[in-house]
Amino acid sequence: MNGKEEAANGLSAAKEISCTAAVAWGPGQPLSIQQIRVLPPREMEVRVKILFTSICHTDLSAWKGQNEAQQVYPRIFGHEASGIYRVVESIGEGVKDIKEGDHVLTIFHGECGECDYCKSKTTNLCAKFRVDPLRSVMRNDGKTRFLTQDGKPIFHFLNASTFSEYTVVDSGCIVKIDPKAPLNTMTLFSCCLSTGFGAVINTANVHQGSTVAVFGLGAVGLAVIQGAKARGASKIIGIDINPDKRIKGQTMGTTDFINPRDIKTSVHEKIRDMIEGGVDFSFECAGNVDVLREAFLSTHDGWGMTVVLGIHPTPRMLPLHPMELFDGRTITGSVFGGFKGKSQLPLFVHHCMHMEGVKLEEFITHELPFNKIDQAFELLIQGKSLRCLLHL
Amino acid sequence: MNGKEEAANGLSAAKEISCTAAVAWGPGQPLSIQQIRVLPPREMEVRVKILFTSICHTDLSAWKGQNEAQQVYPRIFGHEASGIYRVVESIGEGVKDIKEGDHVLTIFHGECGECDYCKSKTTNLCAKFRVDPLRSVMRNDGKTRFLTQDGKPIFHFLNASTFSEYTVVDSGCIVKIDPKAPLNTMTLFSCCLSTGFGAVINTANVHQGSTVAVFGLGAVGLAVIQGAKARGASKIIGIDINPDKRIKGQTMGTTDFINPRDIKTSVHEKIRDMIEGGVDFSFECAGNVDVLREAFLSTHDGWGMTVVLGIHPTPRMLPLHPMELFDGRTITGSVFGGFKGKSQLPLFVHHCMHMEGVKLEEFITHELPFNKIDQAFELLIQGKSLRCLLHL
Repeated sequence: MNGKEEAANGLSAAKEISCTAAVAWGPGQPLSIQQIRVLPPREMEVRVKILFTSICHTDLSAWKGQNEAQQVYPRIFGHEASGIYRVVESIGEGVKDIKEGDHVLTIFHGECGECDYCKSKTTNLCAKFRVDPLRSVMRNDGKTRFLTQDGKPIFHFLNASTFSEYTVVDSGCIVKIDPKAPLNTMTLFSCCLSTGFGAVINTANVHQGSTVAVFGLGAVGLAVIQGAKARGASKIIGIDINPDKRIKGQTMGTTDFINPRDIKTSVHEKIRDMIEGGVDFSFECAGNVDVLREAFLSTHDGWGMTVVLGIHPTPRMLPLHPMELFDGRTITGSVFGGFKGKSQLPLFVHHCMHMEGVKLEEFITHELPFNKIDQAFELLIQGKSLRCLLHL
Repeated sequence: MNGKEEAANGLSAAKEISCTAAVAWGPGQPLSIQQIRVLPPREMEVRVKILFTSICHTDLSAWKGQNEAQQVYPRIFGHEASGIYRVVESIGEGVKDIKEGDHVLTIFHGECGECDYCKSKTTNLCAKFRVDPLRSVMRNDGKTRFLTQDGKPIFHFLNASTFSEYTVVDSGCIVKIDPKAPLNTMTLFSCCLSTGFGAVINTANVHQGSTVAVFGLGAVGLAVIQGAKARGASKIIGIDINPDKRIKGQTMGTTDFINPRDIKTSVHEKIRDMIEGGVDFSFECAGNVDVLREAFLSTHDGWGMTVVLGIHPTPRMLPLHPMELFDGRTITGSVFGGFKGKSQLPLFVHHCMHMEGVKLEEFITHELPFNKIDQAFELLIQGKSLRCLLHL
């Protein structure tokens, strides 16, 4: 079908464009900064000009190909980004909620608004656009919107693929935000900030006076601390084996800090010493099952809740005995902080812009031009950066 | 201190009495029906005349000594009983909520009413009287109220020890009930009925139109079915490898029945075939971790909840991977159906007496005189009885 036929069928006449992207050609291979072709968006899709993107550990592990089932190359990674909507084509009902020039975020965990999940108040899963690291093509036609110059498909990642000047995403994976919001810090809302903060306010529902322990003070853990502080938690204990996190934690809102390497007891015993019986809520942001068990045992029996946020790549199962559930501690997972992204994120962004004490800039420890993306990965690998912001 | 001194110190002058009890002298040894001495109750304790008691699998496994740490003999088992309060002595503030002639239940999971747990709305644990199979003496003085004729102590079990004509329990472990309630079926409220029915209405909060799967149709599972029916569940699927349970389940309220031995797929696949995506709630009443995994996977992602009710004696851990929590299924334990026994059970008994469709008599499949207790155990071992009621 040529362009003329497409137009006759109601397809837009938008053209493919060329732009620069960072393409992964194999597990752990240096990213190739190269010209690619970006096809026009199809029904209910949006093509976005990316202005800023940051890098998360999920990009890192995917780039390294740590999960063999997810190894698909060439592929464009990246899922924390903000940008400007540029072009949309639609067939049939089409995209109605976004117009040219809108400021937008990409989200890896989308919301179609129409499935049973989206209609349920109890979940932020979506039948169409829930996070799925195995999916590497668009839902419309099972094809990619990225091509190499000689026409070879380049695969998508996490509903986003933001390591590119332009990307094409489903409209269910794009969120329109207040144009007054500074786009440089908005990338945080695409993943880490929403995940951590949302786990506190949506999943756990931490309340005034609650006691909280946060295991692992990476970007997600620090976002948990910010959320707990915003909710008026009376104690916020940060736990990390990196001594530098003591100060960073304090900046974000911890009242106490434990370095497991500095104490002789287990962490949960230490916490139960500090707060009789344990904390009301613990958040596991380390992706380690042994840490997860400590997080579970650090909560108060009868009502303690542990929220799992870390990604656990090993085959090791939950280190809990069924009978331990009878002590009244619960454990639950939280994806994207429990937010229904498209409908709830705009208000959350608005709140964070106007809420006192939310320190978005503290998450961005480094900034680099897009073509230095390998350097940004290196900073993350070495544990030197929380978030490195790439300017496109 | 003799009786006179006790009276001078404010202790009651109640005397020890002699009565018949079924005493366990060693793991799995036939119970000895013998005369024992029952001491007067001390501060905040009550001595109760037991009229009816039934037997639960927990009595069976304790009698067999399946958990070595819990092997304490001689001991009087039994924890499902109803009776009449007979004598109470108290020191200091004393027992105020029960008067002579009251009809009562014993509960294994008590409520002191004063600890942090009892004051919390979120748990039915109690710092003093929560279920504790390791405790075999009274809290007041670390001693027993049962003695052999020659003065050797006989140990207590689960805050109750109801295999005796008279028992002494903490007042936090005794519940006053409507004297119009038929005492023969009231033993069910001491454990199985409250556990299963309560898990539905308190822990899971099953609602009108919910879909429910119940794994294991013993007395607890059947009580779950009764609770789900009372709440207006639209589908109640019973699962058991015993084909006789099909009819029993129907009588209690199942809409469907699965015998895992009759199907070629796994049970969770079968259930997801029957109800798109799975059930809203599953209840594990079998005490088997493989069944537990099936129960977990049979619920709908995004909002499914699995409630663990079975006792899991093996060292095998929860057969779930941490990442599986990200699918939005939750798992939780429920002890004594989430009831705060002393404050909430009287109303529950009242409701069950007047609610249509609650079939208490269906749980009691056999009745025997107390001295045939070994025969009652045999019926349970052979899977022939749900509950055998012993008349004292």
